[in-house]
Amino acid sequence: MRNLKVTMAFRGTNYHGYQRQNNALTVQEVVEDAVSKILNTKTTIYGCSRTDTGVHAEKFCFSFKTENQIPIRNFIRGINGYLPKDISVLDCEEMPEDFHARFSCVGKTYLYRIHNSESKDPFSTDMALHYRRPIDIELMKKAAEFFVGTHDFGSFCADCSKKLDTIRTIYQFQIEINENDIKILVKGNGFLYNMVRILVGTLLDINEGRIKLSDLESIMNARDRRLAGRTALPHGLYLHEVYYDSI
Amino acid sequence: MRNLKVTMAFRGTNYHGYQRQNNALTVQEVVEDAVSKILNTKTTIYGCSRTDTGVHAEKFCFSFKTENQIPIRNFIRGINGYLPKDISVLDCEEMPEDFHARFSCVGKTYLYRIHNSESKDPFSTDMALHYRRPIDIELMKKAAEFFVGTHDFGSFCADCSKKLDTIRTIYQFQIEINENDIKILVKGNGFLYNMVRILVGTLLDINEGRIKLSDLESIMNARDRRLAGRTALPHGLYLHEVYYDSI
Repeated sequence: MRNLKVTMAFRGTNYHGYQRQNNALTVQEVVEDAVSKILNTKTTIYGCSRTDTGVHAEKFCFSFKTENQIPIRNFIRGINGYLPKDISVLDCEEMPEDFHARFSCVGKTYLYRIHNSESKDPFSTDMALHYRRPIDIELMKKAAEFFVGTHDFGSFCADCSKKLDTIRTIYQFQIEINENDIKILVKGNGFLYNMVRILVGTLLDINEGRIKLSDLESIMNARDRRLAGRTALPHGLYLHEVYYDSI
Repeated sequence: MRNLKVTMAFRGTNYHGYQRQNNALTVQEVVEDAVSKILNTKTTIYGCSRTDTGVHAEKFCFSFKTENQIPIRNFIRGINGYLPKDISVLDCEEMPEDFHARFSCVGKTYLYRIHNSESKDPFSTDMALHYRRPIDIELMKKAAEFFVGTHDFGSFCADCSKKLDTIRTIYQFQIEINENDIKILVKGNGFLYNMVRILVGTLLDINEGRIKLSDLESIMNARDRRLAGRTALPHGLYLHEVYYDSI
């Protein structure tokens, strides 16, 4: 039995997230149908994570098992022929039997894109948050720095039960600015539900003076979602990279 | 009478070019309607150039005259409220009476974007040419260098009559590569119909060995469109910058 790992990019605008749902179009459904056509047999794929409606992925991994001996190159070409223009398979490789796109994952990097200007950008509609207010980059960088390390992110999680293990490690929380375009990169060993969007929303609330830098510690300690900032809109978020062997 | 110069960006995918046409949606029509609404009177705008169907603009200028004393800032905010998400006004300024977006223009830079990879990029659909073959950047740079300077571009013009003055000056013809993304920037004092697309198509034909570098001189001298390369697809092309006072 072959165990294949596939890396794909998708623009999430037209999908109700990655994970298959009844009565709503999802990336998994579209990709699973394409894989099943290529392999001539109904096939289940396992994604590295869920994603919210409108969230994008630059490198999303999924894995599946098959007896089919199709060469890798033909698989990539073939499946791309079946996929719509907003989903693209970038790579495919043979993995050991015990590999699983979700359970073997040791970390991820998310990207959040902001277009910071008075006027909207017609080229990043649905692909970056349009944010009109001036951004104090140094202030946002200080706030980002606070989150680096191993912390209890219970306040930065949507619908988290108090019993859930909400301790995660953030390795990097970088903010890059290029004219009007801001890229926020968050690299960690795992992320809670909506965690990146709440972290970015908190940075924006700090930028706007609604939350003070000096309050971050007590917000973190409270493990209370209501104290953290807003949830930034989904269309600025990208799954940027998924790590397996090492981070 | 005020004379206003407006800079806007538009994504050309959904328009039959800039210039107003009967029976086809154009950028001019949509923008003119928005300007007329803001100013409460039917107003004609003058664009810096025509653009083909599907071609984009990062900075397109138009000008118009008005008696209306609306403050610049209110005009920008107001018109952006009327414009669809694929057109955005970036700036507006008062100009001397004799300024005209087309006739005062002394040069332009066009950008052509290529996504060079086996798999398509879901984030640049309709915004870059997807080109699968390997690109020999050094060869393409040599070809680009050949076009810099003042030449007769009669072979690089669609529907050009032999009588037309087809002499133009290219100041810069730069090729930048960043992983799979190639940006071609062409700066000149003026451009013939389809000239940038034919120049880029010729570079691609050179890359594919259909045209030799050593043939460029005779192709140029012939003033014959049939000898130059193909016309690159419109959706990779952007009007990047328009110059008025100096280049």
